Amino acid sequence: MAFQLARLGDAGHERPYALLDGAAFPLDGLTADIDGAFLENDGVKRAREEVEAGRIASSGRLEALGLRVGAPIGSVGKVVCIGLNYRDHAAETGAKLPTEPVIFMKDPSTIVGPNDDVLIPRKSTKTDWEVELAVVIGKTARYLDDERSALACVAGYAVANDVSEREFQLERGGQWVKGKSCETFNPLGPWLVPADDVADPQSLGLQLSVNGEPKQDGNTCDMLFGVAYVVRYVSQFMVLRPGDVINTGTPAGVALGQPDPKPYLRPGDVMELEIEGLGRQRQLLRQA
Amino acid sequence: MAFQLARLGDAGHERPYALLDGAAFPLDGLTADIDGAFLENDGVKRAREEVEAGRIASSGRLEALGLRVGAPIGSVGKVVCIGLNYRDHAAETGAKLPTEPVIFMKDPSTIVGPNDDVLIPRKSTKTDWEVELAVVIGKTARYLDDERSALACVAGYAVANDVSEREFQLERGGQWVKGKSCETFNPLGPWLVPADDVADPQSLGLQLSVNGEPKQDGNTCDMLFGVAYVVRYVSQFMVLRPGDVINTGTPAGVALGQPDPKPYLRPGDVMELEIEGLGRQRQLLRQA
Repeated sequence: MAFQLARLGDAGHERPYALLDGAAFPLDGLTADIDGAFLENDGVKRAREEVEAGRIASSGRLEALGLRVGAPIGSVGKVVCIGLNYRDHAAETGAKLPTEPVIFMKDPSTIVGPNDDVLIPRKSTKTDWEVELAVVIGKTARYLDDERSALACVAGYAVANDVSEREFQLERGGQWVKGKSCETFNPLGPWLVPADDVADPQSLGLQLSVNGEPKQDGNTCDMLFGVAYVVRYVSQFMVLRPGDVINTGTPAGVALGQPDPKPYLRPGDVMELEIEGLGRQRQLLRQA
Repeated sequence: MAFQLARLGDAGHERPYALLDGAAFPLDGLTADIDGAFLENDGVKRAREEVEAGRIASSGRLEALGLRVGAPIGSVGKVVCIGLNYRDHAAETGAKLPTEPVIFMKDPSTIVGPNDDVLIPRKSTKTDWEVELAVVIGKTARYLDDERSALACVAGYAVANDVSEREFQLERGGQWVKGKSCETFNPLGPWLVPADDVADPQSLGLQLSVNGEPKQDGNTCDMLFGVAYVVRYVSQFMVLRPGDVINTGTPAGVALGQPDPKPYLRPGDVMELEIEGLGRQRQLLRQA
């Protein structure tokens, strides 16, 4: 049975739900939000037990509720990103293959729902897409010794779009964050799939299309540094806390990697993305 | 009369206080915390009115309370840092002068109190200091048109130590964040000085010493990009929200800029730093 966690409702007013085979179960009796504290206190397990035992009444089918789907995690403390983590993407951008993970950050307030509009920043001409496997941290990770303890810190997985402005990122002096932190630049969701329900995070297909035209078609088996390696590695440099998110990098097929004139995003364009078993997103582009 | 805002108490359990000429006034009746929501809702002005009108009883002198001083802002959403923002520091690190502000981020969970211990990361040999003027945002800043509206978004100022691990930052592949986000790497405080009480943020002396030996001695008049310019500039690339912090860069005198063998920090060392009118910090170095 497919079990996920979701946050439903207007932006800033999302309520916590569990989803079981498409039916929505309100978790208000269990928690105020799906956030770091909920994940740390075994909230996923408790929610599943309550729902599977029939102790929470269903609100009905998710699609019949008519509620906006928010990002599946609230109060995200930080968004850590891994750069150039697929061989084909590093090649298409002309970058050398990293010998250890490249880390950068984006503003956590860029997180929006999976189907919310994405804003093209003012003065932007190079807004680009990046489908990524997002790892949601469930337990504090600090100087982890091995990859098994790293995976034990993962609460679950979700789809992320690491939207990027390439001029801001690469041509405006210095560090990538300038092109990664624009408003709405991190659609996340539609839901959190518990780690226990993802048999192998290194064999998930990921696709992204723009206006129905396929752009990215990769598989997490092609990551240079897999999820367990990345979590252990990052924990040597910073403390990962429950509710933190790691975007694990994108495969080839971004606009930056295409021949000129590169097909950067324009108002009215529609991005659709999907990761095997983790659901779909759809975003309309608008001018900020 | 000197008026400041502070958070006092054990780590994770700080309570909000106003300080008036060294006497502490608990703000529990006014707010649960000194955070973005408090700043956005004119909390500084309300706190000052309550204290100055004598409507809050003093708890006594700050130093007599025996309470730990925490960072003066809770629930910080992001820490934006400006790199190479003093001519002499850019020169000492061998970097070219930036033609526009260099932006990077650090994990907001690195924020600790002004006198808390700082941890030297495991496997670190190049832990370094950076005294900086921290700008605390009080109103949402988004595509600001001019520097006057930028200053109107500033709630106040504080001292920050942008502690940095130079090998992690510069020699481990890619982006600076790797050497900026280690646990305890952002002492902040001792208090927030309201923007109205800082006559000119571009004429403040900043000093840092290690084990009593002077290392940094600069003035914010030497910033390449001043506070108003920086806030307006950053707002073109991301939304600054109430409670966000900007570290505005450090003057010359860091260990990285010294001749070999560079005097990087060791367990047992003590950093003391101060900005004119904004108070003092003191941190003992310990091994993580």
